[in-house]
Amino acid sequence: MSTPRILRMSSLFVRTLRDDPADAEVPSHRLLVRAGYIRRAAPGIYTWLPLGLKVLRKIEAIVRDEMDGMGAQELSFPALLPREPYDATGRWTEYGDNIFRLKDRKGGDYLLGPTHEEMFTLTVKDLYSSYKDLPLSIYQIQTKYRDEARPRAGILRGREFTMKDSYSFDVDDAGLDESYQKHRDAYVRIFDRLGFDYVIVKATSGAMGGSRSEEFLAKAAVGEDTYVRCTTCDYAANVEAVQVRPPSPVAYDDAPAAHAEQTPDTPTIQTLVDHLNASYPRPDRAWTGADTLKNVLVMLKHPDGTREPVAIGLPGDREVDQKRLEGQLEPIEVEPFDETEFRKHPSLVKGYIGPGVLGEKNESGIRYLVDPRIVEGTRWVTGADAPGSHVLDLVAGRDFTPDGTIEAAEVRDGDPCPNCDGGVLETARGIEMGHIFQLGRKYADALDLRVLDENGKLVTVTMGSYGIGCSRAVAAIAEGTLDEVGLCWPRNVAPADVHLVAAGKDEATFAAAERIAHELAGQGIEVLYDDRAGRISPGVKFKDAELIGVPTVVVVGKSLAESHTVEVRDRRSGEREDVSADHVVDHLVRLVRH
Amino acid sequence: MSTPRILRMSSLFVRTLRDDPADAEVPSHRLLVRAGYIRRAAPGIYTWLPLGLKVLRKIEAIVRDEMDGMGAQELSFPALLPREPYDATGRWTEYGDNIFRLKDRKGGDYLLGPTHEEMFTLTVKDLYSSYKDLPLSIYQIQTKYRDEARPRAGILRGREFTMKDSYSFDVDDAGLDESYQKHRDAYVRIFDRLGFDYVIVKATSGAMGGSRSEEFLAKAAVGEDTYVRCTTCDYAANVEAVQVRPPSPVAYDDAPAAHAEQTPDTPTIQTLVDHLNASYPRPDRAWTGADTLKNVLVMLKHPDGTREPVAIGLPGDREVDQKRLEGQLEPIEVEPFDETEFRKHPSLVKGYIGPGVLGEKNESGIRYLVDPRIVEGTRWVTGADAPGSHVLDLVAGRDFTPDGTIEAAEVRDGDPCPNCDGGVLETARGIEMGHIFQLGRKYADALDLRVLDENGKLVTVTMGSYGIGCSRAVAAIAEGTLDEVGLCWPRNVAPADVHLVAAGKDEATFAAAERIAHELAGQGIEVLYDDRAGRISPGVKFKDAELIGVPTVVVVGKSLAESHTVEVRDRRSGEREDVSADHVVDHLVRLVRH
Repeated sequence: MSTPRILRMSSLFVRTLRDDPADAEVPSHRLLVRAGYIRRAAPGIYTWLPLGLKVLRKIEAIVRDEMDGMGAQELSFPALLPREPYDATGRWTEYGDNIFRLKDRKGGDYLLGPTHEEMFTLTVKDLYSSYKDLPLSIYQIQTKYRDEARPRAGILRGREFTMKDSYSFDVDDAGLDESYQKHRDAYVRIFDRLGFDYVIVKATSGAMGGSRSEEFLAKAAVGEDTYVRCTTCDYAANVEAVQVRPPSPVAYDDAPAAHAEQTPDTPTIQTLVDHLNASYPRPDRAWTGADTLKNVLVMLKHPDGTREPVAIGLPGDREVDQKRLEGQLEPIEVEPFDETEFRKHPSLVKGYIGPGVLGEKNESGIRYLVDPRIVEGTRWVTGADAPGSHVLDLVAGRDFTPDGTIEAAEVRDGDPCPNCDGGVLETARGIEMGHIFQLGRKYADALDLRVLDENGKLVTVTMGSYGIGCSRAVAAIAEGTLDEVGLCWPRNVAPADVHLVAAGKDEATFAAAERIAHELAGQGIEVLYDDRAGRISPGVKFKDAELIGVPTVVVVGKSLAESHTVEVRDRRSGEREDVSADHVVDHLVRLVRH
Repeated sequence: MSTPRILRMSSLFVRTLRDDPADAEVPSHRLLVRAGYIRRAAPGIYTWLPLGLKVLRKIEAIVRDEMDGMGAQELSFPALLPREPYDATGRWTEYGDNIFRLKDRKGGDYLLGPTHEEMFTLTVKDLYSSYKDLPLSIYQIQTKYRDEARPRAGILRGREFTMKDSYSFDVDDAGLDESYQKHRDAYVRIFDRLGFDYVIVKATSGAMGGSRSEEFLAKAAVGEDTYVRCTTCDYAANVEAVQVRPPSPVAYDDAPAAHAEQTPDTPTIQTLVDHLNASYPRPDRAWTGADTLKNVLVMLKHPDGTREPVAIGLPGDREVDQKRLEGQLEPIEVEPFDETEFRKHPSLVKGYIGPGVLGEKNESGIRYLVDPRIVEGTRWVTGADAPGSHVLDLVAGRDFTPDGTIEAAEVRDGDPCPNCDGGVLETARGIEMGHIFQLGRKYADALDLRVLDENGKLVTVTMGSYGIGCSRAVAAIAEGTLDEVGLCWPRNVAPADVHLVAAGKDEATFAAAERIAHELAGQGIEVLYDDRAGRISPGVKFKDAELIGVPTVVVVGKSLAESHTVEVRDRRSGEREDVSADHVVDHLVRLVRH
């Protein structure tokens, strides 16, 4: 146990601010600046002042300890990287404006690394050649750069930031599953140790669909990520990753035959529903948008540049969620289906499109994918492919057969949970702090990372990708723990264990506080000691302690002379306790180590 | 005491190479690559593999510990910096091609920080306003960027590198002296702990002449820095900083009057000396170049752009050392005095220029600065300002009076020591690992960093600048300690304390080695354990151990079965000792902790 140095407010390089910085949008940003943890150097680029750096380093130390503990090995790649490997994977151009590019004095192209897949892959290729070398997990804690269009909320979305990124390398899928699980276990330990409220949500992994992908989100109202959780079971998923549980097929032997009806001026779901209720009232219940089948056309742009029209069928009361749609299709991009396209397909009657003309085998030849709720036997009102006309009692599986299903409909509060019976989903917001996913062979293929297997055959290595935003974690933890008066750190990441305040003017106060500070340090406790003398009032010192947010505040004040006690305050609960000055060190050691 | 994790060669991310990398110029570069410490990513840009990163982190930890110990506070500035502050100090343009510049997506100008004077200064200005806040020393350990014209020797002169840079801030010169001394003491402790051969040399501080400036150099034949040291006393100085000790004035009452003589075809010192020895032989000793006074003309380019001709007078046996001259004059630049300039000064006769026309009060009006050896009473042969003519017996102080002195003459092995009587200088080469100097008010002036003094008056803050090249130190220490078979680390920075080799094939060997590895780890000893089984021969393991350079190598081999002993080898001396397998752990703990 080493003796930590006492931080003294009289010399600590910090200035607390009374006013909120003008550019601060979210509470954590406001407070981290006001409490002197960080300072803006340029948009999305921050200086870490001593208090902030201490929190960042504690987070990094926890991450490092658990990564080492699971057998991952630390290395460190440059931030300034040559263009060539990023050309080989296509990312030099794919990144668009999102990376910082530069030239060296000889005109060579470089970038500031946004992520390091290429470097990890190439270095393993450089060093390793046999299945005997695998599995391997390597990581770095390193500065990364992204030229964000809208840097946001201080260090929550910065342009220069610190990440832990690791990659696993295995010869086969079973190995990848094992490496993934080891990382996941380590992440759970890391986030537990960080000491704040987080949730693990299922995430999509784009083109690598089917393989595992999970995000670790800090629960936060200001978060940029929307996720859903079940009110009953522990299901949680990124909105993009929610998979609707299809209802069971419905018997349709008794269903009447489909029949087209005149529904003049009903190009929207609302006008259609109104018309149905007026002209075709049902005895048991009114028509709603959920009874209708809406068909939305989009253009898919494939990576090779070809464009393909696709029709998406979904219940009329739901919109297409562009992010969910793109999440399913990545790296395919989704573009609007415009007037020019409509002119190319004269069988499509805008506002009245029905399955009659959709599907690869039908008139338009347009692939027809439907929401998973459109199961066999369900009965729909949908377009009759003629102006002012709809079909009623159209039965899926009897009257039309889609080409497949797709998760493109919006997810709504109250939707049934895909994971349990009776549970319903609710949406919530979070900050992405970690993402683990099975990357597969994308980079190994692009950069030809192959090893000899047991039979002497070359096999392509399969990779897992695991990231934690360390600098973002400072903001996310702050955001998740602060209160109306200031920051309020979990013990494991606080810049100090104890904030000791000398709240008197007489020498005895300072002498007692000084003694306590030294005894605490001698016990390995990190002390932030407000030893400021002179005009600084106790009130100012208390306000600073609240703002800075060390979990335990100890006040050496009037009660010292009166009753030989000092006050121990819990920053979060506000609870106060008078403790004998003789026993306070033992008391605090127990508190900190509990 | 935490239990360090055992590094196992069977899984360590490393490949030792038998062959030298093609681009490696110096031994440390060759060995750091061959032993798997670093890997080139681009010219002058390197990846730190696990072994290399361990050494770098140990160096950083020592630096951090001593900086914290002297009361400096750690913070961290961004590497990606906006242009504006560098415009304010003029360095945006001054740096020329030596910095990496880039634009963000909005067209804003940025640079990758080569040093952070501006950021340190502005941040102190931002937070502090009173003399009561000072003194302050703040530092960071951070990645820096310089677009070197010739990146060299691996990490010795890279384009992305890690530095500790600190700055002190004081209200007055006495405070700066104190801050400087505290840094100097900390540096001595740091370099002592790093455990290799270094020398502290006086250095110049350019325009801030007179204030203190010292460099910490690793002694190394491959070093880029030349310094001189006294063979008798402990004087050592960067060549630029050597100050010639002027000889005492010489009595010249008996000196004959100066007399011009015809010396046809003697435009060079050698032709002149030959002519003197032929035509004016001296009885006691032959004429040499040291008897002649050579006058060299240069043009000074001042920072405001004005140009000024200056004549430098020095003993004819010495050349002007351009680096020394520029070191004295910085930021003034030195340019050649070309034919055009000669034409402007018709009184200057090339090859025969003498003090007769030099000096501000003389015909040419050209400022005349002389080497400090040209003291009053010394007698010279020099140009008579007419073709083929020289003056003999020209006495300084009697026949001419220069406008001042300047340290521009080359320093040579055998020159008298400026610091002691009888000692002589010898040149040596070194690698600059640290530089401390009194920066003064340059940046505080440019960026208006002022604080209120005790009397409520604004005073400009004075700064000290203190750097240590952490990544360069890895190479410098390697260079200073390696031998013909591999790296050979000082104990404090070695990637492990003990390199344990299982040098047998039987289970008993591995079981014993495994037990020793665990017991050592339990005692807090860092073990690199060569647990590789299969075809790897003991010979290959020994070669790897020599190459990797952990200070103590322990071999569990044949002697285990024969005599229940293991062999403990000292990597540096090669000494071997058989130690009972039962006592080897205690033995090693003593060895490592001694």
